[in-house]
Amino acid sequence: MTGHAARSARLADVSSLPVEPPPATSPVPHVAPVAPVAPVLPVTPAMLAASRAGVPERGELPKYFQVKQKIDAVLDELGQGTPLPTEREFAERFGVSRMTVRQAIRELRLEGRVQRSGRSTVAAGPKLVQPLILASYTEGLRRQGRRPGRELVAFEQLAADPALASGLGVQAGAPVFHLERLLFADEERVGLESTYLSVERFPALAADFDPRTSLYAYLRTTGVVFADADERIETVLASPREVQLIGTSPALPMLLLNRVSRDRDGLPVECVRSLYRGDRFSFTAHLIAEES
Amino acid sequence: MTGHAARSARLADVSSLPVEPPPATSPVPHVAPVAPVAPVLPVTPAMLAASRAGVPERGELPKYFQVKQKIDAVLDELGQGTPLPTEREFAERFGVSRMTVRQAIRELRLEGRVQRSGRSTVAAGPKLVQPLILASYTEGLRRQGRRPGRELVAFEQLAADPALASGLGVQAGAPVFHLERLLFADEERVGLESTYLSVERFPALAADFDPRTSLYAYLRTTGVVFADADERIETVLASPREVQLIGTSPALPMLLLNRVSRDRDGLPVECVRSLYRGDRFSFTAHLIAEES
Repeated sequence: MTGHAARSARLADVSSLPVEPPPATSPVPHVAPVAPVAPVLPVTPAMLAASRAGVPERGELPKYFQVKQKIDAVLDELGQGTPLPTEREFAERFGVSRMTVRQAIRELRLEGRVQRSGRSTVAAGPKLVQPLILASYTEGLRRQGRRPGRELVAFEQLAADPALASGLGVQAGAPVFHLERLLFADEERVGLESTYLSVERFPALAADFDPRTSLYAYLRTTGVVFADADERIETVLASPREVQLIGTSPALPMLLLNRVSRDRDGLPVECVRSLYRGDRFSFTAHLIAEES
Repeated sequence: MTGHAARSARLADVSSLPVEPPPATSPVPHVAPVAPVAPVLPVTPAMLAASRAGVPERGELPKYFQVKQKIDAVLDELGQGTPLPTEREFAERFGVSRMTVRQAIRELRLEGRVQRSGRSTVAAGPKLVQPLILASYTEGLRRQGRRPGRELVAFEQLAADPALASGLGVQAGAPVFHLERLLFADEERVGLESTYLSVERFPALAADFDPRTSLYAYLRTTGVVFADADERIETVLASPREVQLIGTSPALPMLLLNRVSRDRDGLPVECVRSLYRGDRFSFTAHLIAEES
């Protein structure tokens, strides 16, 4: 076997390992699971020179992952909210231990393919797709035709530490409001949001604002015109306190968004830390080329 | 104790549970860990009516999480790349079992606060902050002053399935290139990217394009002017194949980005599925108000 043929074979072996299909439905198509029907291209010398060493000749697919893929196919047949067969039924059907089935279902749950409903596990609906726009959670969710809800966890006055003071454009130690609310979508707890605002700038907030309503709507009544924001998005694990409040599993990856929004004068309006269940949320951005 | 006072106490109890500090440094400040130095605000009747029932009077903080917070404080003292004390040393110092220390360090690793370096565990640097802009990985990383790298995993020709065909604006079954590359930042494997392009539109790709270089730079030489893109971002678990290629742990949350980019005529250029290590990457977006 020549070096060339060996490399081609290695590439083919790697790509024949199954790609895990991501969960469904959004304006952006999930392009992962394309079945190769045409033959693998002849590889040019330039590609070969660049191709990757160190990929195992044959990948071993863990048993739980094979079971996960089979259950995933079963889920495609079940409607949203339909209870899954029991662990024992799956174990018998696939000839594996209940422990293996449990691990597969655990991953499907972390990814939002199934969810708990009372004491049973049911097929989950698609993830919510929230646009990354300068709107509040309430406004964003309404655009998707979902029913937003907020529940107050904490409303307190703090002294700004240097990082927060810098974000809000106030002196370190200046008084800030901290408003912490649980986020709901159609009665389901999906996130936790902490908003920080300057007390000097919004002195009437504690008296006038109803925390069950949209904060952005309130801020607009005070004359704020939102202009732009910087937002950072990353994945984190929920802390025990957050797990307790959101009612989720400690191992569940969360999406953390940090936002600083500004008004038309370029003055900071708020700093926000929002935590969303990674199994229930995705975010979309519309990107415009700088060159065009 | 009046109902009012009881509610205030409950809110105070909840907010006195520690908030987990997120990892450091970015243009957007992490606003989470603000120590309350001013007294908790008197709560107005409107807030009370909206405040949340069902939060436990006292949260119990798991032992591993207490240890995690202590190690996190130790990490603040250590420089990037400095090896951590051993599990045994931590266990003795904090009076807990090595198992408890191991769980704490595992979470710190999943969150990118520590990382493996050879056989030891070292303090990690801050996450890379990649802007969500219509640029390629190579271009985005260069802007941050990091050295991007790409290694070819697969380059093949496929027949488009209906979802991919719709994304690329071609007939189902039409030939598409699939280019799969490992992404490196400063020699470290940080992600895996699959790009799909129409063979009819870019017939010379296999012959002319060097997969170690920027695809966007190549596409521009063929006359493409990028105009806009839709991108979706979510968190997923890596599949075994992806774990093998990226060299990461199966439990590590990943950031999955799906992109469809278009040219000035509104024609789709590419569909891209990029997977980034959640412990090494964050993304930022600049949001412009629609109303302004």
